[in-house]
Amino acid sequence: MTNTIYLDNGATTQIAPEVLKAMKPYLTKKFGNPNSIHLFGREPAKAIEMVRKRILEKLGAKRGILVFTGCGSESNNLAIKGVAFANRNKGKHIITSKIEHSCVLESCKWLEKQGFEITYLDVNKEGIVDVGALKKAIRKDTILVSVMHVNNEIGTIQPICEIGKICREKGIYFHTDACQSFTKVPLNVDKYFLDLVTISAHKIHGPKGVAALYIQNNVKIEPWVHGGGQEDGLRGGTQNIPGIIGFGAAVDVIKPEDIKKMTEIRNKTIKEILKIKGSHLNGSLTQRACNNINVRFDKIEGESLLMHLDNLGIAVSTGSACASKSLEPSHVLRALGLSPEQTHGSLRITISKYTTNKEIDYFLSVLPKFIEKLRNISPLK
Amino acid sequence: MTNTIYLDNGATTQIAPEVLKAMKPYLTKKFGNPNSIHLFGREPAKAIEMVRKRILEKLGAKRGILVFTGCGSESNNLAIKGVAFANRNKGKHIITSKIEHSCVLESCKWLEKQGFEITYLDVNKEGIVDVGALKKAIRKDTILVSVMHVNNEIGTIQPICEIGKICREKGIYFHTDACQSFTKVPLNVDKYFLDLVTISAHKIHGPKGVAALYIQNNVKIEPWVHGGGQEDGLRGGTQNIPGIIGFGAAVDVIKPEDIKKMTEIRNKTIKEILKIKGSHLNGSLTQRACNNINVRFDKIEGESLLMHLDNLGIAVSTGSACASKSLEPSHVLRALGLSPEQTHGSLRITISKYTTNKEIDYFLSVLPKFIEKLRNISPLK
Repeated sequence: MTNTIYLDNGATTQIAPEVLKAMKPYLTKKFGNPNSIHLFGREPAKAIEMVRKRILEKLGAKRGILVFTGCGSESNNLAIKGVAFANRNKGKHIITSKIEHSCVLESCKWLEKQGFEITYLDVNKEGIVDVGALKKAIRKDTILVSVMHVNNEIGTIQPICEIGKICREKGIYFHTDACQSFTKVPLNVDKYFLDLVTISAHKIHGPKGVAALYIQNNVKIEPWVHGGGQEDGLRGGTQNIPGIIGFGAAVDVIKPEDIKKMTEIRNKTIKEILKIKGSHLNGSLTQRACNNINVRFDKIEGESLLMHLDNLGIAVSTGSACASKSLEPSHVLRALGLSPEQTHGSLRITISKYTTNKEIDYFLSVLPKFIEKLRNISPLK
Repeated sequence: MTNTIYLDNGATTQIAPEVLKAMKPYLTKKFGNPNSIHLFGREPAKAIEMVRKRILEKLGAKRGILVFTGCGSESNNLAIKGVAFANRNKGKHIITSKIEHSCVLESCKWLEKQGFEITYLDVNKEGIVDVGALKKAIRKDTILVSVMHVNNEIGTIQPICEIGKICREKGIYFHTDACQSFTKVPLNVDKYFLDLVTISAHKIHGPKGVAALYIQNNVKIEPWVHGGGQEDGLRGGTQNIPGIIGFGAAVDVIKPEDIKKMTEIRNKTIKEILKIKGSHLNGSLTQRACNNINVRFDKIEGESLLMHLDNLGIAVSTGSACASKSLEPSHVLRALGLSPEQTHGSLRITISKYTTNKEIDYFLSVLPKFIEKLRNISPLK
């Protein structure tokens, strides 16, 4: 894909060359099953344990395990349903927020059908959970709180350290979905009092098909995918070895200088877009991941804008990728208090370490023209 | 790994060169999320639909869908628990066999804790389910029968067409785990009356980290990994695109001439091994997958034999890989009526299309020597 500009890194990222290089031996010669005891099995078994150690180190985890899964959604399902079923004798109340990823919300809705009670916390206009409201929502039978670290649509950073502290004090497990933050936003499971953390490889220049769930040692949890005892008995199935090796390499792809560069590009992009008449930032200006820009334009259909940009080879999105084919207005933007029209006028631009100033400048040069063009033909007056 | 002989293809197989070639563009340039509507998303979205169509065609399925998952275990979990939860108003009884893969048995044990009743059918000495016994076990509240196509340890082929016919007549869903049979043993979901079929890529020279569940159109099933509507709403999570593309290429790797060659090597291997004094075949001589040899030797520890062969670079196994680190005797071999000593004296040799006569001849030349050596030092008299 030459002459294209990829600004949808919230949906997925390209595999970094060093990640693919690390994976290659495991896609060819080193193909053994790590659960086999012969030489073909021992080498990958050793390799995944090294990756596990490296990721736990990167998470700042000294007293927990890492369970490899097939995707971030599976990790979130395991965290929420695995804890729910293992602790239902203790209580059946779970707290989450209205802006969680759909895999968290759908898991919660399913648990409601199994007799659990869920509190869905509101967020403020910037998309931030009110810690006071969370504290008030805690009941005697609350067994789990699940609040994401960084929102996938608007990039808002939640006060997970504060939430973690409250949960630890109350003896309630705290899970955070860190798919959008890991390696980009400071995260330390021990310092932040986190019990369960979801991370995914393909959001950080690793391969698709592999994710993980960090689980603190004291957490009582059941497997969700039962199997032959792999992954400490918490996730059955032959491990995706090339994927796990790639995941291990991916945690070192984004460096401090990349975060600095992304932050600069993000700030410039927001500043330039907000010069356009009738444009607004969705989410927070200060509590925001370095790679996320989410804006809305009055009297514009975000999808039309997306298609015009797409014709030029520029890839952006209107919300989360998995909901992109849905006509429903984004539940995240609605939770900010936006009207259906406002949500439909929104655009998400998510950059990566590979995004250049030249690319962004080109995007910023064509954007106002399309907006003007679309407003001229818009029925929304 | 030069000078090695891999005879553990039941555990996992090497990726075929043509499979890796097909995957490569999706590990590099074509990295988009198939759920994105821009050009980066449309290409992989189209590609996975082509794979889906190809695999459904290979399965002989004209009226069903294919859901991609992260591993065979996940597919089996989805089939069994997804059907159980979706149909519990109809009934809570499930029938399976004692020699299923541990992911099936563990799923069933977990369902027992949720109030379901499971009948675990016996098998005969050759490891074959008695269709008459299955018929008798069916109750008014039976909602699902799950019997594997080919057993992973002993390679026995089950009479799934007969079972499927009975289930279809009774209006009970029939699931089969075809991970060990797909592309190696005739399988046709429509002709065999199959409602749910599990298949996995890494058993057929595809990559690890991707599998699928075929679901006949009329099956009532719930997702097990909830998410953002991917895979017909039945499995959340960004699809493993390179994995799925590899899976699509893998279904054409094993050709009729490969099956013929494997059958010949299998027959020769069984014949030669049975010349060794105190050796016995586990499983059936006639109803057996083309790649499986499972034998036992009197007064031998299979694991010691495995380690001696391993020292020469020959990889075999004593049972299923996922249970290889367990000291428990194989539940499959126990179900055949073997004593713990007999199960511990067993060895599984699983070949592939890449296994050469030269490799097998070398293996067959060293095997009797090791057996003699081990018997000389054996405390089992």
